[in-house]
Amino acid sequence: MKNQTLFFPNPVYVKETATIAGPKESEGPLKQYFHHCLNDDLLKQKSHEHAEIKMHIAALNHLLQRAKMKKEDINCCFSGDLLDEIISSNFSMREIDVPFFGLYNACATLGESYILASSLISTGLLDNAICSVSSHFATAERQYRYPLELGSQRTPLSQWTVTAAAATLLTREKSTIKITCGTVGKVTDYGVKDANDMGGVMAPAALSTLKAHLKATNTNTDDYDLILTGDLGFSGGKMLKKLAEKEGIMLEKNYLDCGMLVFNKEGQEVEQGGSGACCCGLVFNSYVYKKMLNGKYKKVLLMPTGALLSKTSSLQGESIPAICHAVCLETEY
Amino acid sequence: MKNQTLFFPNPVYVKETATIAGPKESEGPLKQYFHHCLNDDLLKQKSHEHAEIKMHIAALNHLLQRAKMKKEDINCCFSGDLLDEIISSNFSMREIDVPFFGLYNACATLGESYILASSLISTGLLDNAICSVSSHFATAERQYRYPLELGSQRTPLSQWTVTAAAATLLTREKSTIKITCGTVGKVTDYGVKDANDMGGVMAPAALSTLKAHLKATNTNTDDYDLILTGDLGFSGGKMLKKLAEKEGIMLEKNYLDCGMLVFNKEGQEVEQGGSGACCCGLVFNSYVYKKMLNGKYKKVLLMPTGALLSKTSSLQGESIPAICHAVCLETEY
Repeated sequence: MKNQTLFFPNPVYVKETATIAGPKESEGPLKQYFHHCLNDDLLKQKSHEHAEIKMHIAALNHLLQRAKMKKEDINCCFSGDLLDEIISSNFSMREIDVPFFGLYNACATLGESYILASSLISTGLLDNAICSVSSHFATAERQYRYPLELGSQRTPLSQWTVTAAAATLLTREKSTIKITCGTVGKVTDYGVKDANDMGGVMAPAALSTLKAHLKATNTNTDDYDLILTGDLGFSGGKMLKKLAEKEGIMLEKNYLDCGMLVFNKEGQEVEQGGSGACCCGLVFNSYVYKKMLNGKYKKVLLMPTGALLSKTSSLQGESIPAICHAVCLETEY
Repeated sequence: MKNQTLFFPNPVYVKETATIAGPKESEGPLKQYFHHCLNDDLLKQKSHEHAEIKMHIAALNHLLQRAKMKKEDINCCFSGDLLDEIISSNFSMREIDVPFFGLYNACATLGESYILASSLISTGLLDNAICSVSSHFATAERQYRYPLELGSQRTPLSQWTVTAAAATLLTREKSTIKITCGTVGKVTDYGVKDANDMGGVMAPAALSTLKAHLKATNTNTDDYDLILTGDLGFSGGKMLKKLAEKEGIMLEKNYLDCGMLVFNKEGQEVEQGGSGACCCGLVFNSYVYKKMLNGKYKKVLLMPTGALLSKTSSLQGESIPAICHAVCLETEY
């Protein structure tokens, strides 16, 4: 490990992806890229938690179908979500019956899962693995902030937790997109206490990981076709650009954030954009993945960002720690 | 991966361990083996959550001291706990400033952390890593069951969540105890809904992983000096023995459970014994580790068990899924 970065000795390939998008996400600008769109966020279940679990299982099954594989062919799942005790993942694994590593790095979990799965595949310990995440607006709001039934007013810095599930199959078998290295985040905390200002909480974590990654790989931002943070949203993304500029790191030309991409800023009333453990899962595994396949992006730095709060820590007056992991993906023909 | 099992190509060594035990644990039979005993479970903090975090940080610092290393020398931390959104680990990492993988497999998290850290160290991606876990009776009771202030009566199948933090330093540098392989658990669910009957929930998961491990390694239970489950307690341990016997696996001679070992069955009013993410951390990292060092146990199969419930899943009437990971440790002279 050099400067927080793991260089995989053999490339790990993204064999297939799957995404299930909620109704609001399916009205956004990326609609055409999603694998499956829902028109009901309760999915005929008795609770939104059950709906999230159903969505998570659907993403896993959809991935297996797309990859023409059975669950018996899968070595391991690396999965996580935002629910207390990651029950969306736990209950999904009950159905899938594959060896399971449960992960929690909030909305940075997808990055964590890609790095850990790639580490084990690249070194030959595993042949393949599924990485999966889910999030749901209704379950996240009542867990981290207030139940929707309260009708609380949204603040200007709010983001809208994405309702979606995403799954990725990583293998040693050659395909078009490979993962070459990953930078493991450290926890940062700049004292922000507002559980609605996720962008402000996470921007410094993104900068810290970006700096470590560029140093470790001896690259600069121009070397990437796209630098893509997870869910900083409009305000957090702007903050990251400013913070980076102060350190001489330019993010003007090739920087995007999944939270900025997933909804229409005008008309969808999402304030600063999307957020949630599956915000980057939904956007990367559909839109960006397809843009990589068709050659628009050749080298992408995917940087999922996570705010490590709980309702207990917020109620106890604690500030909010954050983390960001970076994963470097490149096309290979 | 063969039968859920990862065989590490190079041995990974346990360089050092550290344990911090709560007041009740420090009155139990293993008192003399703990590295540090507390006489107050609030640690002068304003909440038990803050106390748990303080304990977790103390275990990490104590480990570094014992290993004569600085945090800058540590490649990564693999950490988890039982609190919603694993805030004990997140807030500890804020102080430690080391690249961080957040894990959640409930009380099986220590096993998960040993397997993942060993995978990355064995294959040369990391030189070393810290695995850490914590749990606290007061934080776990109010989160999974009822706040202590309610004075709820404990049921006969209850276990007592261990108040403790434990940390382990794994390295490639040769020492006396090595980790040779790990079996990754699958999620099982036999329909138990009683959030007080953790032993009943987890015993089938332990059996499933034990069977997979014995098959993958072509061993039988006699090949181990000790088979040590995490926190099945007396009733769960008895259930595991019976279930195993039905399948022709004998656990009479060399089977123990950390939940049975950590408290006195008589006099400490813990019903079926100890439980919690740090139950196996506290017992393995002190008592069993020292017994391995002094040659009593040469080959140990450590099997942390976890119940993957949340208060939401329990209140919504769900049954409780469970998981167990197995880690094989051997002495080398």
